[in-house]
Amino acid sequence: MGQKCMEKVSSFLFEYDTPRMVLVRNKKVGLTFRLIQLIVLAYIIGWVFLYEKGYQSQDSIVSSVSVKLKGLTLTNESVMGPHIWDVVDYVFPPQGDNSFVVMTNFIVTPGQKQGTCPELPDAGLCTQDSDCSKGKYSRQGQGLMTGKCVHFNSTVKTCEVFGWCPVEVDDHVPSPALLSEAEKFTLFIKNSITFPRFKVSRRNLVESVTKQYLKKCTYHKVTDSLCPVFDLGYIVKESGQNFTFLAVKGADQEQEGMNLALYPAFWAEAAPPHKGGVVGITIDWNCDLDWPVRYCKPIYQFHGLYNDDSNVSPGFNFRYAKYYKEDGMDKRTLYKVFGIRFDILVNGKAGKFDIIPTMTTIGSGIGIFGVASVLCDLLLLHFLQGRDYYKQKKFKYAEQEPSKLHKKVKELDNAQ
Amino acid sequence: MGQKCMEKVSSFLFEYDTPRMVLVRNKKVGLTFRLIQLIVLAYIIGWVFLYEKGYQSQDSIVSSVSVKLKGLTLTNESVMGPHIWDVVDYVFPPQGDNSFVVMTNFIVTPGQKQGTCPELPDAGLCTQDSDCSKGKYSRQGQGLMTGKCVHFNSTVKTCEVFGWCPVEVDDHVPSPALLSEAEKFTLFIKNSITFPRFKVSRRNLVESVTKQYLKKCTYHKVTDSLCPVFDLGYIVKESGQNFTFLAVKGADQEQEGMNLALYPAFWAEAAPPHKGGVVGITIDWNCDLDWPVRYCKPIYQFHGLYNDDSNVSPGFNFRYAKYYKEDGMDKRTLYKVFGIRFDILVNGKAGKFDIIPTMTTIGSGIGIFGVASVLCDLLLLHFLQGRDYYKQKKFKYAEQEPSKLHKKVKELDNAQ
Amino acid sequence: MGQKCMEKVSSFLFEYDTPRMVLVRNKKVGLTFRLIQLIVLAYIIGWVFLYEKGYQSQDSIVSSVSVKLKGLTLTNESVMGPHIWDVVDYVFPPQGDNSFVVMTNFIVTPGQKQGTCPELPDAGLCTQDSDCSKGKYSRQGQGLMTGKCVHFNSTVKTCEVFGWCPVEVDDHVPSPALLSEAEKFTLFIKNSITFPRFKVSRRNLVESVTKQYLKKCTYHKVTDSLCPVFDLGYIVKESGQNFTFLAVKGADQEQEGMNLALYPAFWAEAAPPHKGGVVGITIDWNCDLDWPVRYCKPIYQFHGLYNDDSNVSPGFNFRYAKYYKEDGMDKRTLYKVFGIRFDILVNGKAGKFDIIPTMTTIGSGIGIFGVASVLCDLLLLHFLQGRDYYKQKKFKYAEQEPSKLHKKVKELDNAQ
Repeated sequence: MGQKCMEKVSSFLFEYDTPRMVLVRNKKVGLTFRLIQLIVLAYIIGWVFLYEKGYQSQDSIVSSVSVKLKGLTLTNESVMGPHIWDVVDYVFPPQGDNSFVVMTNFIVTPGQKQGTCPELPDAGLCTQDSDCSKGKYSRQGQGLMTGKCVHFNSTVKTCEVFGWCPVEVDDHVPSPALLSEAEKFTLFIKNSITFPRFKVSRRNLVESVTKQYLKKCTYHKVTDSLCPVFDLGYIVKESGQNFTFLAVKGADQEQEGMNLALYPAFWAEAAPPHKGGVVGITIDWNCDLDWPVRYCKPIYQFHGLYNDDSNVSPGFNFRYAKYYKEDGMDKRTLYKVFGIRFDILVNGKAGKFDIIPTMTTIGSGIGIFGVASVLCDLLLLHFLQGRDYYKQKKFKYAEQEPSKLHKKVKELDNAQ
Repeated sequence: MGQKCMEKVSSFLFEYDTPRMVLVRNKKVGLTFRLIQLIVLAYIIGWVFLYEKGYQSQDSIVSSVSVKLKGLTLTNESVMGPHIWDVVDYVFPPQGDNSFVVMTNFIVTPGQKQGTCPELPDAGLCTQDSDCSKGKYSRQGQGLMTGKCVHFNSTVKTCEVFGWCPVEVDDHVPSPALLSEAEKFTLFIKNSITFPRFKVSRRNLVESVTKQYLKKCTYHKVTDSLCPVFDLGYIVKESGQNFTFLAVKGADQEQEGMNLALYPAFWAEAAPPHKGGVVGITIDWNCDLDWPVRYCKPIYQFHGLYNDDSNVSPGFNFRYAKYYKEDGMDKRTLYKVFGIRFDILVNGKAGKFDIIPTMTTIGSGIGIFGVASVLCDLLLLHFLQGRDYYKQKKFKYAEQEPSKLHKKVKELDNAQ
Repeated sequence: MGQKCMEKVSSFLFEYDTPRMVLVRNKKVGLTFRLIQLIVLAYIIGWVFLYEKGYQSQDSIVSSVSVKLKGLTLTNESVMGPHIWDVVDYVFPPQGDNSFVVMTNFIVTPGQKQGTCPELPDAGLCTQDSDCSKGKYSRQGQGLMTGKCVHFNSTVKTCEVFGWCPVEVDDHVPSPALLSEAEKFTLFIKNSITFPRFKVSRRNLVESVTKQYLKKCTYHKVTDSLCPVFDLGYIVKESGQNFTFLAVKGADQEQEGMNLALYPAFWAEAAPPHKGGVVGITIDWNCDLDWPVRYCKPIYQFHGLYNDDSNVSPGFNFRYAKYYKEDGMDKRTLYKVFGIRFDILVNGKAGKFDIIPTMTTIGSGIGIFGVASVLCDLLLLHFLQGRDYYKQKKFKYAEQEPSKLHKKVKELDNAQ
């Protein structure tokens, strides 16, 4: 028993079985076979290995962005008088996040305080007190109705509301945009990335961006493609949009604005005529870490994030307020801010040689090699003239029940 | 020599070697073989190709989100009197980021200014000056101790502190929540996504969300699953939470609040009784870009991000202040804001036909096909009755040292 | 015809073809074959399956972070006098986002209002009115030039500007940092994650972080590696930076500051001497979901995001303002804030057993197994002594045109 076991182990260890082959001397099949093998090999080496870098494992990106803006502009508007706007005044939020808004236009409502005042005609026309349900607010309204119908002006009566008074009048958006010079503002982006798996960190101030270069440069997609200082106007232009158009309501929006007045809707303000925009600044890091890390550089791209065909609810605006106390009363200056929102989206991946994907690619490549054999066998056994002859060469038949005849065959086999 | 080389090249090019096979006419093995092949084929085609779309390459998402809220509510609280709160007052930050807080409750401490005042009893009970170490601050304290022990009220003495005075008293959270009507506020989400590899961009205002539809619709998971306008109450309900409970401290938290008073701790305020919550709004984009892009639509889902079994440190609150000048002095109104934080998390991937994954899948599929042969050989050579017969058919032995006997076999082979 | 078809179907279903093999009893080749197979097997099982978990499908992470800070500090600076700073005053933004700035130093310019005043000497030295072009602003300037050249002090004349006056004087950064005690502030991080594909949610308050533990613990990388309460000083130290150095301008930056005065540049302020820093707090979730979910725990790591060799534009600072009304005039207190920005970057992936990657791995593994056969055939047929003998055993020749001779061979074959 033990001896039999030993024999099995030794035969397992010391024997090698390799398929018996038929060598077919046929130019057609031979050439076809080599051709298919060549194609598969070219595909695996050329495409999978070299082009798609199938020998690399991938890592995704972890990123941190901070920004800084520069620029000044003067507005001379009826309510506030001449006013200089600097970064502190026109960028939201102030601390330089990867998503920020640059104000380009605004409607200011100074001196609001809690109290009662007539609603805008758009939101609450009335003829008598019973038109105004006390304690409710209309969808367009800016306060709770007190139940009274009062004179808005000499000709029109509207519901009286309790809220921040006087109410904001936002149907006339200044045009051209008050801060249209925002186009000349400059943006400085600092971006630090990490590929955690490969323990590689980079920042967008790469080796070629020296301190001297940084002081003078401005981004240009061809000549200064690594300079992290951008003109806002250039960004917006490259994103395929029109700064002047984004900064205020566009001319073609006027029409829609009129429709909206006829059919006031809850989300009307999200829709035209008050138009701004969102611009995406994509920073692409595609790094081949089999090369020195200094070749790993960012690519900046600019997209208008909401400019497709439909102009359902384009633009960007929001309200904010500066609160203050006057004569012991809480007051606020309300700003409806129209602006351009910039979203900095960092995107990237890194590849580095790794044995696993290499072996997986080779393994599945060998699998695909099998296709060559399958196709040539098909050709050989079914389409060539000598197919019957080749079949006989390739195949040997073994019947289910070894009959006497087969026993003889067996003997012959053994003798062989 | 050259001729021999030529011969080798010609034999390499014009010869094709294919394995010699034994064709076994055995129903058991034949059927088993075809069955296993069928299963493997079904798995590869049905599961890997059709279900898991193994013929596609994947791309991850780059996304930009902006939001807008609507709604008004009235509070009538002792400190501030009747007060209307609009979006500008209750949303943080104002510019509509993908993570924002809606205030639902607050504790206001008006008129704080730098000065000295007695600490709260929780933070600094004392009986004599030596209990208060000058220049230190207690972990619960709101200012630096001056070293004096003064009357907090007629019965209790506490350490005097230098800081924003008077100190905030936050042990009585208004209940029900002051802004409980926040439930009725509506949220408008604009989301623009890009799959950079496929150069496909989409926004959540898809084709079926027309301007007319947008004016009237409100999101409902069944009837209006593409409407980007949401009721806050509906979102919170769908996330498996209770708006009223999130808005104030819950009843079961009261008990814990008492414990906290006995064991004051540094992070007590992060823990109950001051409870709010964080709600995640997931926008899922799973796009099969082999189909027209209009089928690529968002799916909205809502999750309570911190509602697991343990209620260690649930809720969301923060403090902020409105600064002002009064009589030449810097003052501030401090708000402890209890609220619901909404985090909009965009998640998605796109797939598109690509030759690489297709070939890799096919290649590894062919590899798996090999399993059928291995299993059937096992069956054929070790388990079937005629196994010895089949073994003889399949195998031919080649000894290590060709003896005289083998020479004869060789001759026979050559003759064959 | 039908019968022939039936025959074909039956032969397809009931026949099994398996390659005819040569069993080579050769220790060298046999052992080599088994050795290569062993290596491939060890690689596939040990490395791909166990180490790289090739049997798992992966999911990426969706995450939400909120933070809370604690701490007080006193400044005693000439402009504002003694002043206590609490969380509300020194954290931006207040609502606890995953990216926030802790102020460590500042330059305050109180009482700015719109008006005219002389520019700083750095930005606009002049000797006569014609040196100041009306309506322009210099790159360093803080307002629009009025076209006049006025006395900045008794010795120096500078251009007069219209803007927020008086202008900010930011060439003397307080040292040591005014809020250097920020080192002792503590940070509480709440992080909730989801693996959407596996429908698994976790928060960083894992099972072992009980309410009692949370009240006392402070993060330490060895002893309290799961405590979500951090000392800011510890974080900065672990990130490989110096808190005192980050908090103010470093001594070696002074020199550069002088250079900058000689070569004033647009982005000078982004560069030294005004230095702060950005610290990345990475939360790593690497979860093997084949194990119970309680083993899925976060790992905290700290990195200085911008501290590589080059000190091109390090540090972090921004300006913000507190707006107020005084005597009916809009005024602001401008702060130039130097601080440390903390970016919480959540990174992670989860793996779970999945049949697809398992089968793909097995399939490509079987492919790699084929390498063993290829190598051993090479050895057997080209390098061993008995190679000609083995070749004869393995190969059988089939000529292109079956000649008379072949007919005989055919007969022999048939007989066999």
